[in-house]
Amino acid sequence: MSAALKGAQIYFGPFLVTSQVTYSPTPHQQTKSNRLTPHKVFHLTPLSFALVNLKPILPGHVLVSPRRRVPRVADLTAAETTDLFLTVQRVGKMVERVYGASSLNIAVQDGPDAGQSVAHVHAHIIPRKRADLDHRGGTDAVYDLLDGEEGDLRRAFVEGKGAQDGEGEGERRPRAKFPAVDNEGRSPRSMEEMEAEAEMLAREMERMEKEDVE
Amino acid sequence: MSAALKGAQIYFGPFLVTSQVTYSPTPHQQTKSNRLTPHKVFHLTPLSFALVNLKPILPGHVLVSPRRRVPRVADLTAAETTDLFLTVQRVGKMVERVYGASSLNIAVQDGPDAGQSVAHVHAHIIPRKRADLDHRGGTDAVYDLLDGEEGDLRRAFVEGKGAQDGEGEGERRPRAKFPAVDNEGRSPRSMEEMEAEAEMLAREMERMEKEDVE
Repeated sequence: MSAALKGAQIYFGPFLVTSQVTYSPTPHQQTKSNRLTPHKVFHLTPLSFALVNLKPILPGHVLVSPRRRVPRVADLTAAETTDLFLTVQRVGKMVERVYGASSLNIAVQDGPDAGQSVAHVHAHIIPRKRADLDHRGGTDAVYDLLDGEEGDLRRAFVEGKGAQDGEGEGERRPRAKFPAVDNEGRSPRSMEEMEAEAEMLAREMERMEKEDVE
Repeated sequence: MSAALKGAQIYFGPFLVTSQVTYSPTPHQQTKSNRLTPHKVFHLTPLSFALVNLKPILPGHVLVSPRRRVPRVADLTAAETTDLFLTVQRVGKMVERVYGASSLNIAVQDGPDAGQSVAHVHAHIIPRKRADLDHRGGTDAVYDLLDGEEGDLRRAFVEGKGAQDGEGEGERRPRAKFPAVDNEGRSPRSMEEMEAEAEMLAREMERMEKEDVE
């Protein structure tokens, strides 16, 4: 076990989410002897961690984050992006089984204007079952859920569960909402318009990747 | 260039989304000489592709899918998962810049009970700007948007844009909605409850990974 990692403290944004962790340096493996001593973190890889929610939208709603505290997906290295989403895949498979679900919502609010409230990349994983929320009403509003959950998460953390030096408050930002759009009012685009956009985007990808190589 | 890949036809679920593709076998690189001839696909890697939307929720709303047609994230190999989300990262960075946005919503409806309508893994990437939807109303409803968009996508494809042998219709499934939940009504859980859940999930991850190794 790496001495640097033994007892590592894990932060979600400015919030301490585990007070003590024992760690296996082998990716995606934990043995009984070096099990996590979780505060809220339940899984740790070399570059990512998974934590439970204070107010899950549905049973088994968890978060997966990179260990390095960066706000945007674009800030992640290729190794971090790979580890993060392999962890999302594995944790998702586990919570779906454990909570008897049949599907998953996976969502990243990547930046404040997408509803992100804690400036540390995190993927929501929400196990879903057939008609699991039908009894709650008829309006589709997952971003109401996620925004509410995000707000609750931040509020809960700020209320004394590990914020460093008031950093949690200082980081509070206005959050974007995702209001209803009249789907019926949106006109399908023409094939020409779509092809023109596809060509433009293909050129932009080429340009970006050429610049990356140079 | 691989002869097998030259001119490959790309399917999104049962729907043909590109009639002719020229292809660079180098991951994440396209040069001017082998640019895609896109129908709707604008980017192709060895294991993933990106395509534009018929009815984008917001400008620059695109999809990224694995080339292999599988319904669930759990069905993807590690190489496919890695390639898919590195492509999401790169395409997201590009559309955010090109459409002058400041954030991204990244969402996967992983299975029919999470709102998936086309049984082929796909990540939505939606560029966001500050207050970009405020003029549309006040209700948070991204799943109304995504469900609407998903429905529109399927309908548009089925209406004659490349479905194979009526497969599009055959695949139609009831889709889950994501109704509003009263966030205020959800009580924060106790620390004991969260720790018990975290410990249970840590054990389940260990068990799953031990089984994978054996």
